[in-house]
Amino acid sequence: MSEEFCFEVLAQDNTARTGMITTARGKIRTPAFMPVGTAATVKAMHPGSVKALGADIVLCNTYHLMLRPGPERVAALSGLHKFMNWPWPILTDSGGYQVMSLSKLRKLDENGVTFQSHIDGALYRLTPERAMEIQDLLDSDIRMQLDECVRLPCPEQEVRRAMKLSLAWAERSKKAFGAKPGRALFGIVQGGADEDLRQASAKALTDIGFDGYALGGLAVGEPRPVMLAMIECALPWLPAGKPRYLMGAGTPDDLLECVRRGIDMFDCVLPTRAGRHGLAYTRAGRLNLRNARHADDPAPIDPPASCAAARDYSRAYLHHLVKSGEILGMMLLTEINLAYYQELMEDMRRAIAAGGFDDFCAAAKEAWHAGEAGAPSQ
Amino acid sequence: MSEEFCFEVLAQDNTARTGMITTARGKIRTPAFMPVGTAATVKAMHPGSVKALGADIVLCNTYHLMLRPGPERVAALSGLHKFMNWPWPILTDSGGYQVMSLSKLRKLDENGVTFQSHIDGALYRLTPERAMEIQDLLDSDIRMQLDECVRLPCPEQEVRRAMKLSLAWAERSKKAFGAKPGRALFGIVQGGADEDLRQASAKALTDIGFDGYALGGLAVGEPRPVMLAMIECALPWLPAGKPRYLMGAGTPDDLLECVRRGIDMFDCVLPTRAGRHGLAYTRAGRLNLRNARHADDPAPIDPPASCAAARDYSRAYLHHLVKSGEILGMMLLTEINLAYYQELMEDMRRAIAAGGFDDFCAAAKEAWHAGEAGAPSQ
Repeated sequence: MSEEFCFEVLAQDNTARTGMITTARGKIRTPAFMPVGTAATVKAMHPGSVKALGADIVLCNTYHLMLRPGPERVAALSGLHKFMNWPWPILTDSGGYQVMSLSKLRKLDENGVTFQSHIDGALYRLTPERAMEIQDLLDSDIRMQLDECVRLPCPEQEVRRAMKLSLAWAERSKKAFGAKPGRALFGIVQGGADEDLRQASAKALTDIGFDGYALGGLAVGEPRPVMLAMIECALPWLPAGKPRYLMGAGTPDDLLECVRRGIDMFDCVLPTRAGRHGLAYTRAGRLNLRNARHADDPAPIDPPASCAAARDYSRAYLHHLVKSGEILGMMLLTEINLAYYQELMEDMRRAIAAGGFDDFCAAAKEAWHAGEAGAPSQ
Repeated sequence: MSEEFCFEVLAQDNTARTGMITTARGKIRTPAFMPVGTAATVKAMHPGSVKALGADIVLCNTYHLMLRPGPERVAALSGLHKFMNWPWPILTDSGGYQVMSLSKLRKLDENGVTFQSHIDGALYRLTPERAMEIQDLLDSDIRMQLDECVRLPCPEQEVRRAMKLSLAWAERSKKAFGAKPGRALFGIVQGGADEDLRQASAKALTDIGFDGYALGGLAVGEPRPVMLAMIECALPWLPAGKPRYLMGAGTPDDLLECVRRGIDMFDCVLPTRAGRHGLAYTRAGRLNLRNARHADDPAPIDPPASCAAARDYSRAYLHHLVKSGEILGMMLLTEINLAYYQELMEDMRRAIAAGGFDDFCAAAKEAWHAGEAGAPSQ
């Protein structure tokens, strides 16, 4: 448990890079995709299966765990890892994003934010210090500063104000975090869709100094070129020797394009949420299993796959499960999607190490396109 | 695939017995509990996990599969076993019971029953011959005759009429079944809560001759002593060398009391349905994980269990999952319940073979009682 948190870049292919994060609870191969375990569970998955599919780390949401079951309770139960039977690394966010997107009657001030629970209307207060305290009670391996995330589009002065506030909270978060051997604290770059603000945020955070750096307030509905432009403008101002985490993205294509630009870590509800709604992400593109064209198709999603859900069940059966609202349909499609996401990350790591990242991306996109446009079955 | 269907009683302890059913797709240890896979899935379970917990056979519902995805489609997809990725034995019911309990606008005549689907209102017709044909398209290993199941209480003449009709349909079902090496057809004893009718039904079915015999129209809300009395009066009239199946029961205590009286096979939605509603069946009785007393309890459901769900997750975590409506809660509690049911069957088989069935029952009931009345935690 005393191993220091560290990051090593092992290979680089233009701006894409592959490396290894070391934490007290295990190593994380990068670029890494973190399945989202919102309320201390990656929905519809046994934790051992999430690991077996290739995840080195999962993300849990401070906002949700703060409301239920409560961080003090989790601490009394020996921490989040024991609680959710996931002994490997966990990253927790700060709660700031969900306070904005989920809570009722949010009231922000310089010191923090007061909000009503979306579950029962109870009042809660989150400050940079409390966000650190909660994450310490959960005992997560990678922790995020509290930030303020604005909805885009947004007036420039409002974006600037939120960015400045997030910087002030970054300093307070770092102070509250203190020295935690084996645990890491990440700062979060804000600044909306404004290149100058993004650069200023990245520089100021680097001056404060964190174990890693995230890009926040992106993948929230802005045009994709804006997201990519913000990444391109911010990354050069962040220290090359620290991990870079794009929060909340994305589609398989987002993963390719953001890794290409130098992102090391991702989280997104897409593969798990889509799996609960009948959608499968595969090497041949996205399939909607609700579609009647699958009803008589004996072909599995991906016969040579090592993932049992993609190999041992026909599209006809998955269609039947989805149409019938069966839980097994959600289980199998979530498994298929997480398996594909992890396979994509592994393929990217290998391609970067071999110096063939651009070729890999082109081939992956070609396969998605051929699959979507191609025959309904195989 | 050509192995003949047969049944062998291996040991008897008073009227309780343990044996082995051989089918073309595998052996079934009796007394056996068959998890219910209504719509070609044991809800919230991977099929491999159902098998690993000790199930030799599952039950699927002809009514549900007839409506969706349709038996002709399942046949075109190489049968139900391939469809649901369960290569081991499957028993299908005839659809009669769900026509009564689920369908709209049911219209019964001598030849069969016409009903509206509860899903989309479409009209369907079920006759003894069509029930056999559907089960043949599904290619199940054990098939049930079409019967008419009355709701209790019910006037005697109505019970008699339904019992007679079920007998006529039994003959037609047997004729329609024909000769199917490796597949079995079971007749169903009806007769409501009337001992004379039950005996007459059992005798007449035995005269027709089936591979096994079920008791239908029980465990449908009648007082428990009535159910046990009906079993006691009917079983002596059935051939001792054939399996006896009590349809739709029951609680763990039902299993003990009915095995004691000579029942060999059971199916019931209780362990799976209860698991989706926060209830756990254990050696220490039934637990309601929704109850707040579990919120801070670090103890697993059953620490020495071989079932991972009962061993590796705290009651506090299960409580959290149930309160949060998380799918993993349903998955783990279903697993816990099926594991306990299969453990109970295995323990009964062993106790019967050792000649200690009564002692085993007394000890099991004592443990349930001590657990329910005992301390909230361990």
